[in-house]
Amino acid sequence: MKLTQYQRGISGFPEWLPQHRLIENQWIDIVRQVFESFGYASVETASVEEVSSLLAKSGDTDKEIYALGRLQAQEAKDAKLALHYDLTIPFARYVAQNQNELVFPFKRYSIQKAWRGERPQDGRFREFYQCDVDVVDRDRLPIAFDAEIPTIMCEVVRRLKLGQTTLNINNRKILQGFYTGIGIQDVVSVIRCVDKVDKIGLDGALRLLVDELGLPSAVAERCVALAGIRVTDGSFAERVMELGVRSELLDEGLGELRTVVGQIEHDENTTIAVDLSIARGFDYYTGSVYEFKIDQFPDFPSFCSGGRYHDLVESFSRAKLPGVGMSFGLTRIFSKLLKEGLLPDGAKSKSEVLVVFLPGADGQKVLSKASALRKRGINVECFHEPSKVQTQLRYADRKGIAFAYFAGQDGEADEVKDMVTGIQNRVDDRWSPRLEQSIA
Amino acid sequence: MKLTQYQRGISGFPEWLPQHRLIENQWIDIVRQVFESFGYASVETASVEEVSSLLAKSGDTDKEIYALGRLQAQEAKDAKLALHYDLTIPFARYVAQNQNELVFPFKRYSIQKAWRGERPQDGRFREFYQCDVDVVDRDRLPIAFDAEIPTIMCEVVRRLKLGQTTLNINNRKILQGFYTGIGIQDVVSVIRCVDKVDKIGLDGALRLLVDELGLPSAVAERCVALAGIRVTDGSFAERVMELGVRSELLDEGLGELRTVVGQIEHDENTTIAVDLSIARGFDYYTGSVYEFKIDQFPDFPSFCSGGRYHDLVESFSRAKLPGVGMSFGLTRIFSKLLKEGLLPDGAKSKSEVLVVFLPGADGQKVLSKASALRKRGINVECFHEPSKVQTQLRYADRKGIAFAYFAGQDGEADEVKDMVTGIQNRVDDRWSPRLEQSIA
Repeated sequence: MKLTQYQRGISGFPEWLPQHRLIENQWIDIVRQVFESFGYASVETASVEEVSSLLAKSGDTDKEIYALGRLQAQEAKDAKLALHYDLTIPFARYVAQNQNELVFPFKRYSIQKAWRGERPQDGRFREFYQCDVDVVDRDRLPIAFDAEIPTIMCEVVRRLKLGQTTLNINNRKILQGFYTGIGIQDVVSVIRCVDKVDKIGLDGALRLLVDELGLPSAVAERCVALAGIRVTDGSFAERVMELGVRSELLDEGLGELRTVVGQIEHDENTTIAVDLSIARGFDYYTGSVYEFKIDQFPDFPSFCSGGRYHDLVESFSRAKLPGVGMSFGLTRIFSKLLKEGLLPDGAKSKSEVLVVFLPGADGQKVLSKASALRKRGINVECFHEPSKVQTQLRYADRKGIAFAYFAGQDGEADEVKDMVTGIQNRVDDRWSPRLEQSIA
Repeated sequence: MKLTQYQRGISGFPEWLPQHRLIENQWIDIVRQVFESFGYASVETASVEEVSSLLAKSGDTDKEIYALGRLQAQEAKDAKLALHYDLTIPFARYVAQNQNELVFPFKRYSIQKAWRGERPQDGRFREFYQCDVDVVDRDRLPIAFDAEIPTIMCEVVRRLKLGQTTLNINNRKILQGFYTGIGIQDVVSVIRCVDKVDKIGLDGALRLLVDELGLPSAVAERCVALAGIRVTDGSFAERVMELGVRSELLDEGLGELRTVVGQIEHDENTTIAVDLSIARGFDYYTGSVYEFKIDQFPDFPSFCSGGRYHDLVESFSRAKLPGVGMSFGLTRIFSKLLKEGLLPDGAKSKSEVLVVFLPGADGQKVLSKASALRKRGINVECFHEPSKVQTQLRYADRKGIAFAYFAGQDGEADEVKDMVTGIQNRVDDRWSPRLEQSIA
């Protein structure tokens, strides 16, 4: 599979050929099954929000929002609407509006498209699928959920067979507790600098802290020393302690992180790494933060990330609803694997059987045969007109249909041709392609 | 279920509570299964098209198109984009762009949202799901597909349990052949008048033909006589012949309609009615036309319609690709049944089991138990912290979870409480909620 497989659609709005869309659908099914297996319920929000809701939380992304206007309306009298650029703000509005109807802790997932008007590039699209899983509760949300959410995503990654992955974890309380513990006032600015470590390195972050924020070198060095801690075992707390800073918030953060790391379930293909440089740019995270990476693409942005926030609905409601959630960037990673030729080469269609329509055969009988097979749960195409056997077998072959079915004429038995082996056998009314495959 | 179940979202952009979204998801799954059981492949196009593509075919709907603009862009330098208002134009563009990669006859389905900026009213939304199924071929498409497409929709209707329905069928060739046979030049205008019969009655159509189009009464009366033919048996050809008009195209249309009506498969809940007043407003249909109605809502607009067109891609490509397809308005009929209280009251969540977390229990063991059940394919929630049994059972009850699972402590056996009967039994590692349900 090469780059030419990207079709000439509208730039930034990906479309796949049927054989790739089939795999994308399988991915969506798997993600949904995993979310539901943990008891999370589907919510689908509108594609649009009022512009004011989107801007209330968007930080510096407002240039990327697609606003709607009716093509020939003289003057927009409606509330200004725009396409959502993530699934978090719509979720917050939905919860605020429906809180009396929901059961808390409210566990929900959403698998929907989001839109951003930014320049398309590797891993960035203007229209893309996000798969979000979040839980929110009233006033207080147990720490157990900070482990459950990444456990769910580890299962998604395992089921999608994404290969070796690393889940990087941190806790914002550690950063905040440590920075305030060494006398820093403007914690948010320091977090923003440190968050760039994966792009500019520890030295680069050090320079930013000194040159741009004006921190004394000694202070900046301690910040960078914290950011440099990255371990895949339980030694992170010890390593932080060695830096000699103490604060209640720091202790709380270390305790939470220890609990979370201890409770996440994952298989041997996922490494759990405590990485104290991870901060997640958006400043609404207040505790655990997560970032998933695929090991073989170290420079490719995280495909799945999230964290804990102290109040989901603060812009919409007076209730306090703490939550924790992650977002899986399905289009981002799917398109990457497609481009790299790493998607499995599956069948071109979900059709399992082609019922052949031979010249001279009774069309109604051919249709009935197809219908009878379908009633047994088989995906069946019926050739649409009598024509040469070769034409019909070539059609089955090009579409990757595994079996050609010949309905017997005048009391003769039906026969089935295996399109791979070429072997043709008599069959009776109990035949099923899945039976064949389980024997083979 | 009452009107208050419509949530206070953005007008015209429907959102459902989780228990209704669950049913909507089941509907989508069923529609998809049916489409795939006939060998149709999923295609998902971008949500946007270039405005020029949409206007090329849109007739008088251009006021309803939602155009996109980047919120803070000074001047739109991009191609003008807008949200698609149906799935047909995107499909045509997709086929034109990818025709060298597709296998013909190309059978595809799309289950996607579409957007129209029109005033929300009963059965009309600004954002809604459409489920389209179409087949196109190069140069020539066998008439068998004109029966297959409505057969697929009959199966959708059967599987969704929509009750008594009527599929109204006509063939544009009959109208065109008849009208030209009695000397009418402007066939399209006559078709547009006759298409209004279901709103203004035969008398109203007669007046329109005479007063607005200036047809002589005798001619107008023959048009209306044709439109008045509505039968649920094979007598339509005879009835048309009695009107004494002959033309080659009329004969062709009658022959096609006879074949189609004879080949559609359906069950006793669907009536097939030949209704010669059905024309489908859009003028790109050239043969079979279909309109599905629910018998108990005679005034509610058709929820599923379509027809044959002589060239799908005419605005995009020089190839000629005749096709036939239908579109199922999922949101339209789903919201109607929800509003009327006719949707089944299903479970509130897909969770089957709640693993109880008793005070003093080992949290890790509770998690492992949930995980073990999940590995057996069961949807399991794990209570997130130790608390009173009553609290946890109330949670299960409110969410409609059927079983509460008590992991045995200190070598004791596990127990399962049936939340409906209240009966609690010991179970072993082979227990499954589906086993319980199949016994009950």
